[in-house]
Order: sequence, then C-alpha cells, then structure tokens
Amino acid sequence: MNLAINIDELREARISLTGKVGLVPTMGYLHEGHLSLIRQAKAECEHVILTIFVNPTQFGANEDLSKYPRDMERDLALVKPLGVDLVWTPSAEIMYPTGYQTWVEVEAVSYPLEGANRPGHFKGVATVVAKLFNVTQPDKAYFGQKDAQQVAVIRRMAVDLNFPLDVVVCPTVREADGLAMSSRNKYLEGEYRKAAGVLFKALSAAKLLYEGGERSGEVLKGKMKEVLANEPLAELQYVSCADYDTLKELAIVKGKTLLSMAVLIGKTRLIDNFVLG
Amino acid sequence: MNLAINIDELREARISLTGKVGLVPTMGYLHEGHLSLIRQAKAECEHVILTIFVNPTQFGANEDLSKYPRDMERDLALVKPLGVDLVWTPSAEIMYPTGYQTWVEVEAVSYPLEGANRPGHFKGVATVVAKLFNVTQPDKAYFGQKDAQQVAVIRRMAVDLNFPLDVVVCPTVREADGLAMSSRNKYLEGEYRKAAGVLFKALSAAKLLYEGGERSGEVLKGKMKEVLANEPLAELQYVSCADYDTLKELAIVKGKTLLSMAVLIGKTRLIDNFVLG
Repeated sequence: MNLAINIDELREARISLTGKVGLVPTMGYLHEGHLSLIRQAKAECEHVILTIFVNPTQFGANEDLSKYPRDMERDLALVKPLGVDLVWTPSAEIMYPTGYQTWVEVEAVSYPLEGANRPGHFKGVATVVAKLFNVTQPDKAYFGQKDAQQVAVIRRMAVDLNFPLDVVVCPTVREADGLAMSSRNKYLEGEYRKAAGVLFKALSAAKLLYEGGERSGEVLKGKMKEVLANEPLAELQYVSCADYDTLKELAIVKGKTLLSMAVLIGKTRLIDNFVLG
Repeated sequence: MNLAINIDELREARISLTGKVGLVPTMGYLHEGHLSLIRQAKAECEHVILTIFVNPTQFGANEDLSKYPRDMERDLALVKPLGVDLVWTPSAEIMYPTGYQTWVEVEAVSYPLEGANRPGHFKGVATVVAKLFNVTQPDKAYFGQKDAQQVAVIRRMAVDLNFPLDVVVCPTVREADGLAMSSRNKYLEGEYRKAAGVLFKALSAAKLLYEGGERSGEVLKGKMKEVLANEPLAELQYVSCADYDTLKELAIVKGKTLLSMAVLIGKTRLIDNFVLG
C-alpha cells in the first residue's frame, strides 16, 4: 500500500497503476460504510485509490470542521487488509494553496434539503471532487447512498462537465438498529445513541405505506414526521419526498424516488434516506 | 482527418490517438492565429485535436452570438493540410443539454478588464474549456496570447482544479500594420480597418517608453491613451498595466507585466496586449 501526500507523489504513483482504477474519496475516520465502498471498488477495478481529506471548503462557518473526528493511524490499519493500492492524504495547503480561486457549482440539485441548510456546502463538495477526479484520474468513483444529495450533485457534475468516469453509488451500511453508519455517530452517547434509531424507523414506516400502495408525497412525509415526533430527543430539520435525480419535491410519487430527512439528536445532526421505485 | 460531432464519436476516435495529444480549442472562422496554434501543437505532440464550437455561454445578452462569423467548410479546408487528426464540432445541444446546471468560476483574475466589461464571460469560458479538457483529455492545450485574460483565467483554472495537462500560450499573430488577427476583424471595413491599427501603435509607443526605462504604470497607460486619442474612430474602453498572472494593476512595473486595452472601432470591439518583462 503506497502512501502519497503531495500531488506530484500521487501522480508519480498513479502512472504505474495500469488497468481500471477505482477511486474512493473519503474524509477519513473510516467505518464499515467506507470499507464497503473499498470492497466494491476492489471487486470492479484492478486498482483502488483511497483519498482521506477533511475538506475545509464544504464546512460552514458554524460547522464542526475543527472537531471533525480524525484518526489516520486507525484508518490506515483498517484499509491495509483490503488491498488498497494507493492512499492519498493531502493537506489543506496542498489542495487550496495561496491564490486558490476556482469553484465548481452545480445549481438546481444543490439548492434544496442539505443545500438549503448548509449554504456553500455543495460548492465545496463539487470543487474538491473535481480536483480529486483530475488528480487521481479514476475509471470509476465510489460514493455512498447515505449522502443522497451529495451523490445527486456529483452525478450531475460528472455528466455536465463530461468527466471520463462512472460514478458508482453503493448502498448505505447500517448498525443493527438501522442507524446509518457515519463518522458523526461518534458524537452519540447513551440515550442519544438509542434515540438515533428513530430515523430508520421513520423511513421504514413511510416505506411500508409506499409498499402498501400509498403514492402521496404529503402522506409519506406525514408518516415520517409522525414517527419522529414520538422521539423526544429528535428535532426535525426537514423531511423530503423527491425525485431521485432532480430532488424536486413530489406531490405524487412516480419513478425512482428519494425519501430523506435531517434530524438533530441533541447537538448531532444526522441525515438518512431510502430510495423507492 | 477524422470528424466528430457527438461526444461518443469523439471519445471513440480519441482512444486510437496514442502518444501526446495537443488540443486547439477554437470558435471557428479560423485565421492565421489559429493556424499558428495548430502548427505549434503539431510540432510538440503526436496528435492534434481541433475543436470548433461557438460557445453560447460566454456571450452576453447584448453581444454578437447570432452574428458571430461561421464558415465550417472554409475552416475544414484550411486545417486539412496541417495534419489535424481529429476535428470536433459539437452543437450547443450536445454541450448544454436540457437540465445542464454546472459552472466553473475562476474568481479574482476574472473580475477586472474584460470581466468587468463582459459579465459572465469568463464563467462561460472556464466552463466550456473544462468540458473540452474532460472530453478530449489532451496532454497540452494551446491558446493565443491575444486573449490575455482568457489565458490567465484558463491557466489559473488548470492549476486550481489540477487538470493533468499543460496550458501552452502562443504569440499573437498580426497583420502587416500590427492589427492582431481576430475573427471579429471581418467586421472592419475601409477607414475602420485602417483606424484599427491604432491599438498596435498605442501598445508599441508604451513599450518604447518601457524599454527606455519607464516603470510607472500611470505613465505607460497615459501614453497608450494619448495615442488612442489621436484616432477619431477609436473609442477607449480601458487601458491596463497589470501583473501578468494576477491582472492586478501595477503602480510600478516589476516582473512579467501585461499592457492591455479594449477599444471600440465603430461598432467593433477590439482587444490587444503586449507582454513586458
């Protein structure tokens, strides 16, 4: 397993990777969700590049950049047995040197949901992913469905800017009680950890209605809100029932559809989603 | 010489180009300036891709998109003898299909000069060039020094977004009286064509001062204005004496410096520049 920090080191190491290359971009503090991306990349590509970079430009001024969990040693130990060829861990100064001034913005699909709650977040995401694509030049890039809007933004960017690669979306990996794996779950303790199971419960209840034939977006959202309201430690930010690609809210569910939500459990902000259809 | 219109056709043809590939992106209506870019690309690369695309997103609402000169047959006849391997002529619908929503913006270096006079212009330029880079995947991309700020924006974008290629800047090609070659020169007739020589005269006069030791930005700009004022058909839009990379105006000239100007000759807007130092 090769380690690179500088861009020149990465490019040098990249040259020797012949055949299909899969990229797994992460912010580190890896969990089973990340490892599942690596395993799928390994199964589909000759080589796998893992990037670990806590991207400052996707954090808002009031967000948890400085507190975001980091543990490089643990991360490297976790991925070593998985056959990752190359790990790139650039610094913020390498990614955004003095004079840096270029941004990639995806418009409509960035605006609702997370975009409305986290101004500038997807501009930071799209920009750093464009940079990661250009440096690592993968054939396939792997992202988790857990961050559903991130996936929608990156898929749109890849198509619009004609990146010569496939964006592969992998299923959300969950804890035993259904809580979606996330580096931020580390913040959840005791009763808060227990309460966090309510996101999965709310999504499951709405899915059950859908499977019973319900197609009203309002009814499906109403069911999610109802379940969330029963958990006193949960504070709803939004629930959504939207088209999977455009993220436009749906009055009547038709085709591939995203049920999603953001919920505060104490001070910890969690997101989760189910894909229907 | 292969011709491609659709992106899939281009990608298919691109695969067979092994060795270094040079890209010459143009808006067509080719002149000796474009041909010089092709010749330099041919000299430095195994293969040359020429793109011809009048990019609607870099024209303002009041600009000359619909009237911009086009002559594909003439263009193809001009480049055939030069050994271009592949010509890509996409339509606006291919480049910006329904639902398109991704933009690349380069900040500070886009703001002054042309950027101040043509809002949105460099957003359109940066976006289309990023797309052309991703589709054609060149090792080197060739641009004319004539469009000095375009060159500064694209160089900055290529560095910031880590495009794996070299941006090569080629000297401005001029008519006998010094007028920089431009597709828009077609608009100039009779006395207007004659008057257009004043841009070169103004730049030359300032350069002469510089070579005599003058280092005041104000004095060099004053000289350009003075020469332009002597031509009744010329209406000054701006003159600038700025750092070559950042385009920040210089009180005292130091290092690589750009003298530039935009001038209306009748209804035709012309730009030109000299690089000092």
